[in-house]
Amino acid sequence: MATKTILALTPGHPGQLEALDKDYTILRLWKERDAEQAIKENASNIVALTTYLAPVRANLMDALPNLEIIAGGAVGFDHIDIQAAQDRQIIVTNTPDVLTDDTADLGITLMLTLMRRVVEGDAFIRAGLWTKTGFPLGHSLRGKTLGIVGMGAIGSALAERANAFGMHIVYYGPRKKDVPYPYFDDLASMAAKCDVLALTCPGGQGTKHLIDYNVLGHLGQKGYLINIARGSVVKQDDLLVALSNKIIAGAALDVYENEPNVPDAFFVMDNVVLTPHIGSATYETRTRMGAMVVENIRACLNGKAVPNPVTLEHIN
Amino acid sequence: MATKTILALTPGHPGQLEALDKDYTILRLWKERDAEQAIKENASNIVALTTYLAPVRANLMDALPNLEIIAGGAVGFDHIDIQAAQDRQIIVTNTPDVLTDDTADLGITLMLTLMRRVVEGDAFIRAGLWTKTGFPLGHSLRGKTLGIVGMGAIGSALAERANAFGMHIVYYGPRKKDVPYPYFDDLASMAAKCDVLALTCPGGQGTKHLIDYNVLGHLGQKGYLINIARGSVVKQDDLLVALSNKIIAGAALDVYENEPNVPDAFFVMDNVVLTPHIGSATYETRTRMGAMVVENIRACLNGKAVPNPVTLEHIN
Repeated sequence: MATKTILALTPGHPGQLEALDKDYTILRLWKERDAEQAIKENASNIVALTTYLAPVRANLMDALPNLEIIAGGAVGFDHIDIQAAQDRQIIVTNTPDVLTDDTADLGITLMLTLMRRVVEGDAFIRAGLWTKTGFPLGHSLRGKTLGIVGMGAIGSALAERANAFGMHIVYYGPRKKDVPYPYFDDLASMAAKCDVLALTCPGGQGTKHLIDYNVLGHLGQKGYLINIARGSVVKQDDLLVALSNKIIAGAALDVYENEPNVPDAFFVMDNVVLTPHIGSATYETRTRMGAMVVENIRACLNGKAVPNPVTLEHIN
Repeated sequence: MATKTILALTPGHPGQLEALDKDYTILRLWKERDAEQAIKENASNIVALTTYLAPVRANLMDALPNLEIIAGGAVGFDHIDIQAAQDRQIIVTNTPDVLTDDTADLGITLMLTLMRRVVEGDAFIRAGLWTKTGFPLGHSLRGKTLGIVGMGAIGSALAERANAFGMHIVYYGPRKKDVPYPYFDDLASMAAKCDVLALTCPGGQGTKHLIDYNVLGHLGQKGYLINIARGSVVKQDDLLVALSNKIIAGAALDVYENEPNVPDAFFVMDNVVLTPHIGSATYETRTRMGAMVVENIRACLNGKAVPNPVTLEHIN
């Protein structure tokens, strides 16, 4: 009898694959010498697929005739072709909500780290410079205006935290929300009024290159950009030019256009803070996300409704 | 006619000396080739002295027979010999309250930066490692217990911020305060219950080496130390041993025992975040602190009560 096999494109979260090991065969693709061959050999047994950020396109789905579920281990799903999955009646799931707090925490962390010059200060001390020269002053968040691009769950959570630091909040998005902050329907106009612009919107075509040279010019010389959304939201080449020419004061980025590749030009800048997509990268949250992936896969394979389905409606 | 002269040991805050320039002669000591000689030549005209963190001891006071005020530009004053000043009827002032928010902001910033591995992540990307290997998970603040050592103005402000990140607060100090957090009269016992220990107490003899190997041992392998108080509060050699041997998980330090000297041994550690005493180092707050120094000096020299006197009662 063939065993039900789960294809894991990436190692998954703490405890995730171990929890599935006892009931299913797991094909750990990153351990295979010839990934294509391994998929071919196990294709008919593979009923579930799990991925973190590795893409899942139509051609992979077509190679797996018995695939029932693509269980994504992130909140974002622009790396999964939802339309192709729906056409093939494959269920897609994600891990929503659970990473809201961590991602909002990272947003305020990046803002504080950048404006208070913490990464710069750490490098200054480690280079032995403190005994030789003074360190420049940073800026307080208090009284500054924070413009949030995308007032969803993460945007709201970021606004709450920013309130605790005495910031004024405004926001931009496709529509006005039921929140107590002023709404702008024009991004450039909002940027012109902000000290900090924080991106918390979804990725995908709808927000691609929303932040370009024009918006950055409106943000201006004293303005800071924080990106905890998706790399695609920022036209990275425009940002590089804006930072080099001091069109804006600085940027803190957790996401990039072509991860894990980050342009070398960023590496020499002291007015940027760079983190490797760690919005939800805490042991506590990743453990919960792994448990959600397991629940979605188990529900699907046992013929029950999955707790966290993603459908085309979510992206339209 | 001799001009009233102000001796400035350090450059002061933005706008501070410029505001005094029009009414007084300023002796900018750091610009003098022979500081001792410059003091000797101007001694009889010097009626006020201003310092940021440079020490003011009895011998300097004795060299200035007409000194009326020592206007400190910080909230701390353990670098000024208050007893010696009082014995000589010299007024001492500081700049209290105004830096509470910035210092508490830095405390939560250091906690977030350390636990979310931001400095480490930035170095990881700049070293080009992200394309080669994975980055370790950090930790969420949510649900963790924060032990505050010294529940004064800064301690309370830190507690408020930590609340916004879902932390539980406990505190230690010489006496129970009117705050809604559990009080410990034994530091080691509290450390044993904490995930994070944050120091916000005053410096000086009363708190010298409060944090030693024993307390760090109680904080334990998963515990983090944050110091935004004074370097003297921590027995630095014990901390180095505790960090090297993973007796605690990590530390974020803004202050050191012998500033601006920081032991080289810290420089190679990836579980520490080091900042160069920037608790109040924002343009906004330093500008306000400079204005307070100016007000204290003007009041004193015009025979009025100074707004921010420091007396022996403050340290006893």
